[in-house]
Amino acid sequence: MQTIELKNHPKIIGSYSIVGPKEGAGPFGKYFDYVMKDDRLGEKTYEQTECKMLELSVTGAIQNAGLMIGDINLLLAGDLLNQIISSSYAARAFNMPYLGLFGACSTMAESLAVGAVLVNGKHFKNVVCATGSHFSTAERQFRFPLELGCQRVPTSQWTVTAAGASVLSLDGEGPEITKVTFGKVIDFGINDVNNMGAAMAPAAADTMFTHFQETKTKPEDFDLIVTGDLGKLGAEILVDLMEEKGYKLGKNYSDIGHSFFTRQQDTMCGGSGCGANASVLNSYIIKKMRQGLIKKLLFLPTGALMSTTASQQGETIPGVCHALVLEAGGK
Amino acid sequence: MQTIELKNHPKIIGSYSIVGPKEGAGPFGKYFDYVMKDDRLGEKTYEQTECKMLELSVTGAIQNAGLMIGDINLLLAGDLLNQIISSSYAARAFNMPYLGLFGACSTMAESLAVGAVLVNGKHFKNVVCATGSHFSTAERQFRFPLELGCQRVPTSQWTVTAAGASVLSLDGEGPEITKVTFGKVIDFGINDVNNMGAAMAPAAADTMFTHFQETKTKPEDFDLIVTGDLGKLGAEILVDLMEEKGYKLGKNYSDIGHSFFTRQQDTMCGGSGCGANASVLNSYIIKKMRQGLIKKLLFLPTGALMSTTASQQGETIPGVCHALVLEAGGK
Repeated sequence: MQTIELKNHPKIIGSYSIVGPKEGAGPFGKYFDYVMKDDRLGEKTYEQTECKMLELSVTGAIQNAGLMIGDINLLLAGDLLNQIISSSYAARAFNMPYLGLFGACSTMAESLAVGAVLVNGKHFKNVVCATGSHFSTAERQFRFPLELGCQRVPTSQWTVTAAGASVLSLDGEGPEITKVTFGKVIDFGINDVNNMGAAMAPAAADTMFTHFQETKTKPEDFDLIVTGDLGKLGAEILVDLMEEKGYKLGKNYSDIGHSFFTRQQDTMCGGSGCGANASVLNSYIIKKMRQGLIKKLLFLPTGALMSTTASQQGETIPGVCHALVLEAGGK
Repeated sequence: MQTIELKNHPKIIGSYSIVGPKEGAGPFGKYFDYVMKDDRLGEKTYEQTECKMLELSVTGAIQNAGLMIGDINLLLAGDLLNQIISSSYAARAFNMPYLGLFGACSTMAESLAVGAVLVNGKHFKNVVCATGSHFSTAERQFRFPLELGCQRVPTSQWTVTAAGASVLSLDGEGPEITKVTFGKVIDFGINDVNNMGAAMAPAAADTMFTHFQETKTKPEDFDLIVTGDLGKLGAEILVDLMEEKGYKLGKNYSDIGHSFFTRQQDTMCGGSGCGANASVLNSYIIKKMRQGLIKKLLFLPTGALMSTTASQQGETIPGVCHALVLEAGGK
C-alpha cells in the first residue's frame, strides 16, 4: 500500500499566497493574498526575492491561523533552487526547527504529507508547510540566461513567481487532510527540458491510479481533482493515460499549471514551478473549501526531477507525484 | 519542544555501507561492507557512480534485513548534488514510493527521523533511509574544477566517497530510535566554503544543548556522542561552545569527519559529506551496538546549507543539525 490514512484528520488552519504581477493578472488573481508590484520586492537578487516570498508566506499563513511564530513547532519547506537555498535561508529567519525537502514541483504535497503525519501522530502541535518559485531564478538555473531572450517552444511552460504556505494542526478549523498516497519515481524517457508535462504525466497517472485502486474510489467521488503543473499538453496526456487504465477524468478534473494563466498571457502550455500549486491551493482552493463549495479534493502536485548536470550527461527526466485527499469539515 | 519521543521504538533492522578506496584505507576500513576498487564502479560519470553507490546501499541494507525489495514501503533519501539527482535517479531503479530530502550532510539524520516517525505511526511497515556523497561530484560542484588541482587550506575537509542505508521497522532486531530532536537553521556569519566546520558547529551546539535540556540528560548518559562531519576544527569549536553552555564533552564525544581518515591521509580537518556519517553509522556504529558495546548513542549529523549561487551573491553559510537517540535493544 502506498496510501496512508490520517485518522486524526490534521487540518489546514491557516494559509497564505503571494505572487508576481504577471501571475496576479491571471485567472486566480483576485484570490491571492498579495500580488507583488514588481518581481523584486526591493531585494538585490531574484534568489533573495524568492526567499523573501517564502518568508512572507510563512508569516502570512501563521497570522491567518491566528497564531504567533512562537506557536509553530516545525517548518517543512523546499524549492527548485540548487541546495533549496530559498527555503533554508528563509528558515534562518524563523526560530523554529526545519526540515528541508526536495520534490521539485511536487514539494507542496511532500511538505503537507510529512507535516500532516507529524501532526497526526501528535509529535508536534502546529507545523507550517511552504514552497515557492520565481520565474527569473528557475529559468536561468535550468534553461538559459534570461538576457539571451531565447524563443519559447510550444511545449514549454512558464515558471511562475509565486509562493504559498499552510499551517497544519489538530486544533482549529479548516479543510482536513485525510489520506496521502506517496508516489514512485517514474521515467518514461523524456529528455526535453522544455516538455516537462510529458515527463511528469506518467508519474501523475501512476499515483492517481494507485490512489483510486487502494482507496476504492473513482474520479466521480471528488468535487475536484487537480494535478500540479502538467500544463495543457501534460494534462491531455494524463487524461489519455488514465483512460487506458480504465478511469475517465471528467469536468471535475483540472490542472493548475494549465489554468494558471489566460491564453492571452502567452505562456504556451501554461504555468509551472512549485509556487503554482502552492499559491492556488493556499488561496482559491482553500477559500472554496472553507465556503463549502468544494467538499472533497484530490490534490496531486507533480515534480520533474531534472538537473542541468543530469541533462548535460544525457539523462532522461524522471517524474514524481504525491496525492492528498482534502475534505471540507472541521467546523 | 523540538524533541519527540517514538514510543514504538522503530528499529534499524538492516544496514549497509559502501566507500571508495581512500575511505577504505582509513580507520573504519575493515567495518565497511564494500570498499570500491576505484572511484568509478564502471560508470561513465562520477554522478552516475554516486547514484550507483546509493542503489547498492539500499539493496544491501534490504538484504541485510533479510527482506526483499518488494517488502519495502518507502525510500527516503537525499544527497549533496543539485536537485539531489543521485537519490532521485537511484529511486527510479526501485519500484517503491520515494521522499526526497535535503539537509546537506545532516541528511542521514533527517531521513532516519522522518522514516522513524512513519514507522512509529504504523503508516508503513518497512522503510529504507539512505544518503551518500562522492568526492569528485561534490568538489567540482561546490568548489573548483578537479583538474585545477587547487591547493587545500588548513580548515578544509575532504568530501568522502561513501554511502549508507538503513532499513527501519517495528519488527526484527536492531538498535532502536527512541528520540529525535529536530534542529533549527543557525547562521553565525561564516562565508568561507573551505571552513564548513566553523559554519556547522553552532547548529550542532544548539541542537545538542536543546536535546540535553528537553530530555533532562547530560553527556555522561551516553556511551557515545557523535557529530556528523564537523572535522577537527569544528569539533573543537563545538566543545568550546558546549562548555560555555555548561556541558563538558568528554572522551565519549567524537566527530565522524574528524576520525574518518588517518593523519597520514592528509585531509586537513578530516572528512565531510553526507556519506561520512551514513557509512560509519551503518557499519562501525551499528555493529558495535549489535554487539552491545555501545548501548546508548546520541547521533548528530550536521549540514552546511551552502550553494554556489548563494556564496557568489555574498551570502553566509547557515548550518543545521538533527539529533537522534539510538539504544541497543530489540533482542
